[in-house]
Amino acid sequence: MQIAELANTIKSRMEGNRIGIVGGGQLGRMLTEAAKPLGFEVTVLDPSDPPCPAAQAGAEQIQADLTDEYALNWLASRSSVTTWEIEHINADALINLAQDGQNIQPSPYELLMIQDKLEQKNWLKRLGIPVGDFLSIDSEHEMQTALNQFGSIVIKARRGGYDGRGNLVMDKPDWEAVSQRFGHAQLYAERKLNIQKELSVIVARDTSHRMVLYPTIETIQENGQCHMAVAPARISGKKDQETRQIAQEIVGCFGGCGVFAIEMFLTNKNEVLVNEIAPRVHNSGHLTMEANDTSQFEQHVRAITGLPIGQVDLRSRAAMINILGERDGPVELKGLEKALVNPNTYVHIYGKNPTKVARKMGHITVLASTTSEAIRLATKARREISI
Amino acid sequence: MQIAELANTIKSRMEGNRIGIVGGGQLGRMLTEAAKPLGFEVTVLDPSDPPCPAAQAGAEQIQADLTDEYALNWLASRSSVTTWEIEHINADALINLAQDGQNIQPSPYELLMIQDKLEQKNWLKRLGIPVGDFLSIDSEHEMQTALNQFGSIVIKARRGGYDGRGNLVMDKPDWEAVSQRFGHAQLYAERKLNIQKELSVIVARDTSHRMVLYPTIETIQENGQCHMAVAPARISGKKDQETRQIAQEIVGCFGGCGVFAIEMFLTNKNEVLVNEIAPRVHNSGHLTMEANDTSQFEQHVRAITGLPIGQVDLRSRAAMINILGERDGPVELKGLEKALVNPNTYVHIYGKNPTKVARKMGHITVLASTTSEAIRLATKARREISI
Repeated sequence: MQIAELANTIKSRMEGNRIGIVGGGQLGRMLTEAAKPLGFEVTVLDPSDPPCPAAQAGAEQIQADLTDEYALNWLASRSSVTTWEIEHINADALINLAQDGQNIQPSPYELLMIQDKLEQKNWLKRLGIPVGDFLSIDSEHEMQTALNQFGSIVIKARRGGYDGRGNLVMDKPDWEAVSQRFGHAQLYAERKLNIQKELSVIVARDTSHRMVLYPTIETIQENGQCHMAVAPARISGKKDQETRQIAQEIVGCFGGCGVFAIEMFLTNKNEVLVNEIAPRVHNSGHLTMEANDTSQFEQHVRAITGLPIGQVDLRSRAAMINILGERDGPVELKGLEKALVNPNTYVHIYGKNPTKVARKMGHITVLASTTSEAIRLATKARREISI
Repeated sequence: MQIAELANTIKSRMEGNRIGIVGGGQLGRMLTEAAKPLGFEVTVLDPSDPPCPAAQAGAEQIQADLTDEYALNWLASRSSVTTWEIEHINADALINLAQDGQNIQPSPYELLMIQDKLEQKNWLKRLGIPVGDFLSIDSEHEMQTALNQFGSIVIKARRGGYDGRGNLVMDKPDWEAVSQRFGHAQLYAERKLNIQKELSVIVARDTSHRMVLYPTIETIQENGQCHMAVAPARISGKKDQETRQIAQEIVGCFGGCGVFAIEMFLTNKNEVLVNEIAPRVHNSGHLTMEANDTSQFEQHVRAITGLPIGQVDLRSRAAMINILGERDGPVELKGLEKALVNPNTYVHIYGKNPTKVARKMGHITVLASTTSEAIRLATKARREISI
């Protein structure tokens, strides 16, 4: 929709609470799906043409780059509250908007901090949160220091990383490889951990500072990308307590309202270490749509709009599997009729077109009486679908 | 959206399965919400300007009268399957389209039949389905005959009635009142029944002729309009069996695929009598969105598109209460923050504006461990909301 046209549409529509979202991908779409039944109008800022996934679900789309300051201003001025679905956006512009009195949720100040993964790690360390060892590396010499100190390391760009793609694992010094992978980006190194499991705790906090924590979710990665999520995580009750305690502490130090995902590692030594903070709804929480009393999407909408947050009890054991693109080209969805044969199978296609290798095209959640059955059925359903 | 504009939009959008819906009100909206995650594009035919509720949820809207034959042709030619959310539409045009090879679901032939309530009653009677006594009344003399035979009667227009509004209850002959209420409409009379409860059975049938019946739902009417629905219905297991058996027989005789609602009375004499058939998703089934494994909306989408229909187990006791407009004027939604304080409370606002007295503006479903608690909490939540 063109901007002028959109302005008219908005004017002619009902007065009422409007939510602005920076980004209109699958997370923006599922936020839109949750916001509309509660009476909210949604505007998203997204560069996509054809209409982004959220626009296809009834959001108005401002077609502009995610970092475009004018578009952000316009989005915020149109919205009673502005939030985001992705953290690699223009935090400075959002801070300016907050300073101008716009309602930006959660806090754009902490968003600025977490955008730099090294700063984020330092912040967590200062708070006394357990994190793996890490070091800034600005030179070949510092890379060598990290290798000496940690043995094996994972080199990451401080900014802009997504889903762990692009990380470089290293045992022996190879500055050439670093330069090739990262160019002139600012880097840091983490000690390579021996990981038993990856975990995620979804936390919501509302305007009255009430906090609610979802039961810990287990995530299964493949090629550095979230592949599957399982609830509840297959960990001891004591570990579940520990992860939730850590998540609560972190969100307690993060300003503003909304849903946050705290990603953690459970190491082979049974230590819980925080990996990173996603100050937004999260892939690991998709299964909350069917498995919990309140979905993470409705929860975020409620949290940022002054509504009380809901109960998050797990109704059933659940597994969520991502539908990732397997080729480049126009979408051709097939196999739904086979995927839906099993009961309690819920398919969410995001409306993206074309498909691309590793692009998140949709997901499937299966509820079952045991975790292994949910995983088995979700994996089977995924295999039936091609897109 | 203008028609020419829409044609372009459609052309430029992804190829894929498209569902056409005649009517884009709340039922069309909730069908759209269910269809999109399964990868379908939706077009609705609806005269509303501003955009109808379904268009606000991402459906494309053909802005035309529901009975407009050209618009219906266009809708069907754009859609891989065409269905409806309301039965008072142009059944003749839909039959023509079916004869021209378009995929219209469920059968437009039976739609034509049920549009005439007298014909519908005759059809049910011929099938041996229990219905209350009724008589055609074309004259004052026939009205007198009905009164003599039944004592008290309910006079109804054969066509176009909705939600029982406009029905005339009569103990003593008053032809004047009949003429005043109905003008020259064709009429019939039903014996006035002493009703214990109203019941509804939602049935789905898919393209492979598999049939699934939801547990019987109890509906509570107020001023001749659905006010509340409760699941499971508070009736004996034997009665539940009986109502489901009747519903299954009826849908077995109805052509095509989709979701059907069979409305019934349980009389004071404990008889089950069929009131009417709604060959579509139904107000009594809104609670299936949260209370059952598969919602009636997803079920209808699956049934008409060749997907297997889902399981319909009731996960929890539930009560649904309609949010009816209480005044005429622009919408001003208030009180959500109070309504959402109780857990397991799900609010669905339809995006209609303006509000009107008795207009269906939204609904609330509450899940609880007992039916009476669900009713209590739903009633309380409804009182908190003004719109």
